Amino acid sequence: MTDTENSVGIVTPQRFVFDEPIALEAGSELRHYELVVETYGELNSDASNAVLICHALSGNHHAAGRHSPEDAKPGWWDLVIGPGKPIDTDRLFVVSLNNLGGCDGSTGPASATHDGGDLWGPDFPQVTVNDWVETQRRLASRLGISRWAAVIGGSLGGMQALQWSVSYPDWVDHCVIVAAAPSLTAQNIAFNEIARQAIYADPDWRDGNYLAANAQPTTGMALARMVGHLTYMSADRMSDRFGRDLRSGSFAPDSSEAPLFEVESYLRYQGEQFSTRFDANTYILMTRALDRFDISDTAKGDLCNAISEVQSDFLVISFSSDWRFAPNRSKELVDALVANGKSVSYANIESDGGHDAFLLENEDYLAIFSAWMKRVAA
Amino acid sequence: MTDTENSVGIVTPQRFVFDEPIALEAGSELRHYELVVETYGELNSDASNAVLICHALSGNHHAAGRHSPEDAKPGWWDLVIGPGKPIDTDRLFVVSLNNLGGCDGSTGPASATHDGGDLWGPDFPQVTVNDWVETQRRLASRLGISRWAAVIGGSLGGMQALQWSVSYPDWVDHCVIVAAAPSLTAQNIAFNEIARQAIYADPDWRDGNYLAANAQPTTGMALARMVGHLTYMSADRMSDRFGRDLRSGSFAPDSSEAPLFEVESYLRYQGEQFSTRFDANTYILMTRALDRFDISDTAKGDLCNAISEVQSDFLVISFSSDWRFAPNRSKELVDALVANGKSVSYANIESDGGHDAFLLENEDYLAIFSAWMKRVAA
Repeated sequence: MTDTENSVGIVTPQRFVFDEPIALEAGSELRHYELVVETYGELNSDASNAVLICHALSGNHHAAGRHSPEDAKPGWWDLVIGPGKPIDTDRLFVVSLNNLGGCDGSTGPASATHDGGDLWGPDFPQVTVNDWVETQRRLASRLGISRWAAVIGGSLGGMQALQWSVSYPDWVDHCVIVAAAPSLTAQNIAFNEIARQAIYADPDWRDGNYLAANAQPTTGMALARMVGHLTYMSADRMSDRFGRDLRSGSFAPDSSEAPLFEVESYLRYQGEQFSTRFDANTYILMTRALDRFDISDTAKGDLCNAISEVQSDFLVISFSSDWRFAPNRSKELVDALVANGKSVSYANIESDGGHDAFLLENEDYLAIFSAWMKRVAA
Repeated sequence: MTDTENSVGIVTPQRFVFDEPIALEAGSELRHYELVVETYGELNSDASNAVLICHALSGNHHAAGRHSPEDAKPGWWDLVIGPGKPIDTDRLFVVSLNNLGGCDGSTGPASATHDGGDLWGPDFPQVTVNDWVETQRRLASRLGISRWAAVIGGSLGGMQALQWSVSYPDWVDHCVIVAAAPSLTAQNIAFNEIARQAIYADPDWRDGNYLAANAQPTTGMALARMVGHLTYMSADRMSDRFGRDLRSGSFAPDSSEAPLFEVESYLRYQGEQFSTRFDANTYILMTRALDRFDISDTAKGDLCNAISEVQSDFLVISFSSDWRFAPNRSKELVDALVANGKSVSYANIESDGGHDAFLLENEDYLAIFSAWMKRVAA
């Protein structure tokens, strides 16, 4: 298949303005907000073919296609969204948004508090997975959608999909949860905390007021990304890709801070790339939303009880080498669904792609995803 | 057993001055250096009961006993060194030193280049595992030892023990390698690199010249330690110990940078403690020594070939939950020893202690270690 054959083609983001105030879970209220959205495919006459895509920590609304023919890369989940792909735009209407608190166009810490006002910066309120579900529900209403044929997400996006099924059981026909977990572990939280500490430690962080000071905590963001990126990769894949290869082919006398190994250069590059494209306050907000997420919170930690009212048909997918949200975390969720007599299909895909595997080409992954999605009626 | 029953008691470090220049593996020469050393037990008349302890990244010479009755904690490996313990000081003479390049008394980056001279700082030459073996050999000669009854170490210390057996086969009767690996993986190197980047990013790092500026990169060091510490613990133990416990018992409104979860406070505390006690240049040097270590280097990557000349009797111990130097890395070494027809005992200890398990109480670990050490004749 060539890129154009199964691509949604050129796409254009739309902006939706919401003037009805929203009471956020953490206590504050947002009087006004905007969401940037992309849609792929056509909404059918009875609005029964709408699918919501929820993004992960560093994702955004641009999930598929290209903004212009010159774009070097398509959207972040172009692998699975498009004509003939698992999320088939020939029959499904796909909605993809930049979440509230994001930094790619939707209202967030880098936005003005009101027209011509100061920037929110670190004072932007904490947003949670529940809040995202609420904003996504309002977006659905605006689009004339009163029920999702499917809600689908990977990682933090999978947590939103799960929350949707729990919060609005009669809204979600099908629910696809990829490389996610019912909550974060202490180790997960610890890695997020190190990433935050790296940002706080940057003098250009300025207590989160870097934009007002015309500064950017790029060093801290690069470090944060290096930590995150390392947890997205499997040890085996890193060994296969970099091994112990030296940059210069030999142990040159140390020029103190120069990288010696290829893997060091790679990590530094990943960090640098990210540090200039992503807002630090959004990064903090997203990791805090992740840390706080625990689907069993409302049931005093009892996962079985927490999900007892869901009505969706579930597909849960994990990846064998994912150690950030390991297969056993997906299994916990699957076991709880089975114990409740719910409809669930589960696949643990053999892959050395680590957590990032949900974004990577893999024959089994795509075949299972495609086959299962056929039950999502258009 | 009470602490005094099986303790080596009050110990006093000694200082050894070496005026014979040493040519370092990385190319430079050190004209003069000093090593701080502790010994426990008595050297017998034919010097046949001497055991060398090699320390890990943040270790030092103070492996057992206390410096004064008021000391809150004993030496770092008091668990296994003392009367009646696996490394039994009733019959063995134990030598423990702070390695060259260290920051606890031996010559290192925080030392003066010569009496009354400038501090070495970042200009202290890179030291390798081979260099440590060489300095340890000179120390042995100074102590009247021409052969070790055993060389023993955990983590980076285990790598030194292995290197001893390879470099000086007729010097090492027994070799104990705990929670180590024949080389670092790309993932191992990547974690070390992130720790280094955290230090470099601290404005008080000042290209390594912080001491001359009367500064300390404590923020960077704390971050580096947080990264390291996280890789020493198992995910399961962290879940058991911290779970998702909140500091205040509830999601208080975010005071932006305040820790929400217990595990965050714990990590911050660990980082802070370390940041004021350890020298940053030494930390860089130690992680670089780790990264560079590859016992198969001299055999073009062929581990079997690299260890073909060893003569020691080996004990290799790994821990089931150690993901820094996972059991399969110890197994690689064991397989290579077996393939060469060498004498090796291997135990993979069931433990949730992660990499740190080699420092932690564990019945199986101590029983196996003790039983095997009985073959080390006094």
